[in-house]
Amino acid sequence: MRETVNIQVDLGARSYPITIGAGILGSIGARVASLGGSHRVGVVTDSTVRGLYADDVLRSLRAASLDPALVEVADGEESKSLASLSFLYDRFLEAGLDRRSTVIALGGGVIGDLAGFAAATFLRGVPFIQVPTTLLAQVDSSVGGKTGVNLPQGKNLVGAFYQPRLVWIDVLTLTTLPQRQVRAGLAEVIKYGAILSAELFEYLERSLDRLLGLEDEALVNVVGDCCRLKASVVSEDERESGLRAILNFGHTLGHALEQMTDYRRYLHGEAVAVGMVFAARLSAERGLCPVDVATRIERLVERAGLPSRLPGGLSADSLLRAVGADKKIQDGKVRFVGLQSIGKTCFVDLAGAEILHHAEAASVAA
Amino acid sequence: MRETVNIQVDLGARSYPITIGAGILGSIGARVASLGGSHRVGVVTDSTVRGLYADDVLRSLRAASLDPALVEVADGEESKSLASLSFLYDRFLEAGLDRRSTVIALGGGVIGDLAGFAAATFLRGVPFIQVPTTLLAQVDSSVGGKTGVNLPQGKNLVGAFYQPRLVWIDVLTLTTLPQRQVRAGLAEVIKYGAILSAELFEYLERSLDRLLGLEDEALVNVVGDCCRLKASVVSEDERESGLRAILNFGHTLGHALEQMTDYRRYLHGEAVAVGMVFAARLSAERGLCPVDVATRIERLVERAGLPSRLPGGLSADSLLRAVGADKKIQDGKVRFVGLQSIGKTCFVDLAGAEILHHAEAASVAA
Repeated sequence: MRETVNIQVDLGARSYPITIGAGILGSIGARVASLGGSHRVGVVTDSTVRGLYADDVLRSLRAASLDPALVEVADGEESKSLASLSFLYDRFLEAGLDRRSTVIALGGGVIGDLAGFAAATFLRGVPFIQVPTTLLAQVDSSVGGKTGVNLPQGKNLVGAFYQPRLVWIDVLTLTTLPQRQVRAGLAEVIKYGAILSAELFEYLERSLDRLLGLEDEALVNVVGDCCRLKASVVSEDERESGLRAILNFGHTLGHALEQMTDYRRYLHGEAVAVGMVFAARLSAERGLCPVDVATRIERLVERAGLPSRLPGGLSADSLLRAVGADKKIQDGKVRFVGLQSIGKTCFVDLAGAEILHHAEAASVAA
Repeated sequence: MRETVNIQVDLGARSYPITIGAGILGSIGARVASLGGSHRVGVVTDSTVRGLYADDVLRSLRAASLDPALVEVADGEESKSLASLSFLYDRFLEAGLDRRSTVIALGGGVIGDLAGFAAATFLRGVPFIQVPTTLLAQVDSSVGGKTGVNLPQGKNLVGAFYQPRLVWIDVLTLTTLPQRQVRAGLAEVIKYGAILSAELFEYLERSLDRLLGLEDEALVNVVGDCCRLKASVVSEDERESGLRAILNFGHTLGHALEQMTDYRRYLHGEAVAVGMVFAARLSAERGLCPVDVATRIERLVERAGLPSRLPGGLSADSLLRAVGADKKIQDGKVRFVGLQSIGKTCFVDLAGAEILHHAEAASVAA
């Protein structure tokens, strides 16, 4: 095992460490055992990740005298449902998990959100560990304690803030991730640089090719930086009452785009990429930041192979509805996270007509 | 409105007040409005309580410029299910509740547990208010933050610790409660005296008839005392890691009795009454407390019209299984909460044979 990066998420009694390394998946057993709890643990994964990594994890847990029960759900967003939740409760009971049993989420964001919510609510809460295997989950959803499922009426309508005891990140799992998903994960990486760290942003500008080539050291560095940045935001605002809102940079428009295209056309990170370029250009056009800031973001997004412009042909009505449905309306205006410089955010409140004006300027036809 | 009693549950950022009075139900609107939040609120109740008290509550909320949506579930324990939870989410969305909308539980323990868990998880948590209308809910389940639902495999297997913003108790709602339920609620009242307060216990010995006669002043006093006692325990041990276990006095055997009789023969408080007398006699027989302690508890339980003995004809096997399934096993023994004196608890660990010995001595045939 190479060197690992350790980050502490500081949340008082709910503090926890994040460990990031290359090739550490097979060492998880001893770490889980060191946290105490009962021998019986639940490992939740999906059909794809099961075939790739479940054996390594189970073997390591058994070697540490733990007794893991594997619970598999179908691949994909459809598993983030109340039906899957009920399925997990049944499997947990069958497997004999008790109040001191740890639930381990092995997979991407869907698995982390679903298994985390199950852990938050099974027997009113059992210990939980995140083992994210996608770049998006490693830099974003596995840190911060947001868990939940979707309802037919919308995404993430049910859930809990529930902190894991440990996040265990092996960047080698990214080598089996489809290239498109790596790129989509990079959108969130770019976001952290844009809103919180000029240094990370400059590193990305210099080292994007090494990241796209999945070089261990670059990945460990960058995933570590992102986790550190997210941890500092989450520590100050665990339940998303204020500061945490800056993490929505690119997300107001991004969510709207995903929704308008029925979550089929864009991966989350791709929609966020469009949203970030939109928000940066908007900031520049309003004189909130130099034009160069928007240009650098657009260039980095494009180098990462991500879309930077809104698609043509969006109906104004559906765009406004989708942005308005984003629950960020303040006094009739929609609040966007904008930039003052690379690493520094501000808020921009736009009325409907202003949104349409900027959206037109930022669409592919422009 | 007569004088009210106000108690603060001290849980740091999650602290909240309990207000107890006679005839205060129709004044809830102004109090809810004073907590802030959005105008749209959800009121969850059952079919029985709806007919009795929903109008008063809705009128008071509307008079305070709030916009309540009433959500009704069927009467009874069957409503504490994942299906009801899903139903509540749908109704909340239909009613347009948002992250700042308060959910009010108007009813007994089933409604409080169900609506509380829905509030804990809808949009990852919205403000929650308990308006308990049964004695059991007023002195026990509405205070402490335990919420949840049952699974077919067992009770309370899914849930969350989620504190309300306010508990609003009108003892006049007890006038419409069936007498049997009043008596069952008194079992938990007796429990607080037995484990935490000789003063309360003596008051009950003096004033039981006034309580059974539902005299306002006695009810406000006693409900206030119980809430104060439970609040102090909960403040020290929010998530049931230690001290809170003393609240299980009478519950180890009580739960077993409920389970063995399919939750049909005993109301919860009735089973707890049998369990308390069992635990007190057990304590006396083991020399942990004077015999007089057990005698006083037995006498008060019987004066309250509650059962004090185990039914004859219980199978030893099923009793042991039911007690063992209570998740309180330590090193092969089952832990009971016992008494050293009125107001002072201790733990008693019993092996299977000892449990059967004491159970035989405490059954109706003895």
